[in-house]
Amino acid sequence: ARPRVGYFYAGKKSGQIFGDQLRKMLVREYKAVPINIAENTSVYDAIVMMFMEDVGSIFVVKEGGLLAGVVSRKDLLKVAIGNQDTREVPVTLAMTRMPNIVTVTGDDTVYDAAKKLIDYQIDSCPVVRPVDAAGRNLEVIGRFTKTTIAKVFVELGENREV
Amino acid sequence: ARPRVGYFYAGKKSGQIFGDQLRKMLVREYKAVPINIAENTSVYDAIVMMFMEDVGSIFVVKEGGLLAGVVSRKDLLKVAIGNQDTREVPVTLAMTRMPNIVTVTGDDTVYDAAKKLIDYQIDSCPVVRPVDAAGRNLEVIGRFTKTTIAKVFVELGENREV
Repeated sequence: ARPRVGYFYAGKKSGQIFGDQLRKMLVREYKAVPINIAENTSVYDAIVMMFMEDVGSIFVVKEGGLLAGVVSRKDLLKVAIGNQDTREVPVTLAMTRMPNIVTVTGDDTVYDAAKKLIDYQIDSCPVVRPVDAAGRNLEVIGRFTKTTIAKVFVELGENREV
Repeated sequence: ARPRVGYFYAGKKSGQIFGDQLRKMLVREYKAVPINIAENTSVYDAIVMMFMEDVGSIFVVKEGGLLAGVVSRKDLLKVAIGNQDTREVPVTLAMTRMPNIVTVTGDDTVYDAAKKLIDYQIDSCPVVRPVDAAGRNLEVIGRFTKTTIAKVFVELGENREV
């Protein structure tokens, strides 16, 4: 279901055509599976989960898969070099909370999502769907990361029609 | 000094043109500055350096800036949740060593480097220059990461000539 393109018409600069193409790719087509944990998880268990799933960030969710926080390798490393026992520290103390979490939706373009990661200097963010009109409750439906971008980049470079 | 492109000729599929363009971008034009530490650094000091420089991986170098190892957030997190004092553990115990380090050179294309990161499932790698004919000694001259790729991707999407 990925966007297809045909032949070019002449007279458009390549940079423009690149840009046009990139702006047609949607997050929903490329997002990765989210790795979620409950709010009562310890920092230690979050680290173990991170290694088991081999991801750089994990989402902390409330009932119904609603986004409560995001925790990165960096957040966990910060706690781990402190003097506390990571088994005793709840992950909620290490995570970034709403409303400070940067999110994207499935309708965003891969370009806009990539720009967000660069602008906010983060490695990944949750792909969400608002479940109320005010957009205060967000259901986590995916993960968008720099790995996602690198994969898209390699796909574009494969000299095949994308 | 980045590669410039002109107008397209018709009849080439967009995927092909994307690929052709991406394969002209060289690592030397896009690489980031490497963050290096000496072999006698502790895991604790490596973690502090990682936070200060806000990078995901650090290179361990011998005299003359020659590559000895690579240490990632993941490597350091693994030591940090162990029961050892991170101040007592040398970073050489946590790092990936030569010849197991994935490297790229300035002459590699950004596409080939991106493909390496994906294929080896790593977030970054050192950009090196061999200093002997056998290629056994590698001088670290840069850092190529998924952030580098994301930045190139955003640049491509900016709808301007690249």
